Amino acid sequence: MKRIFFNEVVTRDGFQIEPEFIPTDAKVALIDELSPCGYAKIEVTSFTSAKAIPALRDAEEVMGRIRRVPGVEYTVLVPNMRGAERALESKPDEFNLVMSTSETHNLANLRMTREKSFESLAEVIRRVEGQVAINVSLSTSFGCPMEGDVPQEEVLRWCARFADLGVRGLTICDTTGMAHPAQVARMVEALNQRFAHLQLTLHFHNTRGMGLANVLAAVQGGIDRFDGSLGGLGGCPYAPGASGNICSEDAVHMLAVMGYDTGVDLARLLAAARRLPSIVGHGVPGQVAKAGLITELHPAPVQ
Amino acid sequence: MKRIFFNEVVTRDGFQIEPEFIPTDAKVALIDELSPCGYAKIEVTSFTSAKAIPALRDAEEVMGRIRRVPGVEYTVLVPNMRGAERALESKPDEFNLVMSTSETHNLANLRMTREKSFESLAEVIRRVEGQVAINVSLSTSFGCPMEGDVPQEEVLRWCARFADLGVRGLTICDTTGMAHPAQVARMVEALNQRFAHLQLTLHFHNTRGMGLANVLAAVQGGIDRFDGSLGGLGGCPYAPGASGNICSEDAVHMLAVMGYDTGVDLARLLAAARRLPSIVGHGVPGQVAKAGLITELHPAPVQ
Repeated sequence: MKRIFFNEVVTRDGFQIEPEFIPTDAKVALIDELSPCGYAKIEVTSFTSAKAIPALRDAEEVMGRIRRVPGVEYTVLVPNMRGAERALESKPDEFNLVMSTSETHNLANLRMTREKSFESLAEVIRRVEGQVAINVSLSTSFGCPMEGDVPQEEVLRWCARFADLGVRGLTICDTTGMAHPAQVARMVEALNQRFAHLQLTLHFHNTRGMGLANVLAAVQGGIDRFDGSLGGLGGCPYAPGASGNICSEDAVHMLAVMGYDTGVDLARLLAAARRLPSIVGHGVPGQVAKAGLITELHPAPVQ
Repeated sequence: MKRIFFNEVVTRDGFQIEPEFIPTDAKVALIDELSPCGYAKIEVTSFTSAKAIPALRDAEEVMGRIRRVPGVEYTVLVPNMRGAERALESKPDEFNLVMSTSETHNLANLRMTREKSFESLAEVIRRVEGQVAINVSLSTSFGCPMEGDVPQEEVLRWCARFADLGVRGLTICDTTGMAHPAQVARMVEALNQRFAHLQLTLHFHNTRGMGLANVLAAVQGGIDRFDGSLGGLGGCPYAPGASGNICSEDAVHMLAVMGYDTGVDLARLLAAARRLPSIVGHGVPGQVAKAGLITELHPAPVQ
């Protein structure tokens, strides 16, 4: 049974776009519920400015209050040096640095050129060397909602620049759900050829229904690590009404029933997923929490 | 570019479980809107008794009023000899006969043993020989919500019995969304070995989010024909709140952007999909109708 590693991003990627502030107590309780589920990594929060992302303004408090489970890595999103200094105090296991491979998206999202982002993140990497593991998430790597195609060579060029700085891992992100399985297969082949020595993670969205098909294509290509968001929470401002991140429990369920070892306790995870709508105050896209596992049978009707 | 053929089932598989009766005019108008979209086949309605499925009690009238487009096959579901006699009057291109490969599901759904269903359908096939093409849809072929696993050999046994009767096509149905990609790959390999001379169709549901991953696995195995339902309409009484049939436009979109020739005009299909919620009076699960094609770009924000 091949091992697949899951990273949970709901409290960062999911909660950051929730219109209502999720109380700190609820965030801590959810992470404490997720920690014993068998994830490899949990992206707890983001050390962005409270003004930019008020939904995650309680980053320090959340990091200080969660109960860390041995074997789970707790990672935080770090956008810049200021965030890095704040984040270090919270002693995360990993910094997740982020920039876009599309110039237009980087300008729109981070308000600077990609070159400026790279310089800023390189400075962070040098500053924290030896203190915390570094992962870099490259947004819009399968397409930009404003520019369109992002050439694969362009993505690989940014991968190489960060690999040269000695990062531990790279996350190739389909930020707005534009990836399709044939493209994923090509990307994964190139990544394996050039960056197999790094921890490679794929981050998909289900914006156009292709999320789990892309997971399948990536697994077929040898990728063993995925970001997922409980309930499929998250989203994209360019696709109102559409699904967000791939749903953790749906992805875990698919790979588990296919025979992969995900390390995740699905029953426990589903219990958390079924509590999620009451935390966020609305329905969520995840399917398995509604339909049940394929192994949960129903009584035959009385004839 | 490999050709993939799509069969639209929304007005039969989708509408049959709608709680509100869809007016005959609306059914006819929708089929007339779908006919020029590039489908290989449209399953128009079901000649079941009006008492069993009141939602489709207007089968004769719908068949009589639709404008048939050359190149599109119009098929109808036929449950038994009585339905067959009624259906023949409407001159469909194909009869779609149906039974389950699970004994318990067949008893629950059709109120007879599989053996009795087979005898009844065999009689229909002999009765209409030479007058209309015959397809047989085998329900619960990837699992039964009451029995659980349905052994692949059992499915192949029923395929063989119908193949021996000279049917043109077989549809292998994942009636309640229990199929997973590894299972689909195994099934497709076996089907290709033994029934490559027949028109083979795969029918998936997205009940647990695996619908398009299963389409991908089937296409990788060489399958070139799929049932889909506009908007992802349809469903399963055992999974309230979960998604139904795979969404036609989402499946077409995925295969089109991967480089397959689906024959379908996506812009036209999306126009129909976006009108569907107003026909049924509620939202539908399809994603691409909400998010747009991956090629539809957005303006960059003004800095």
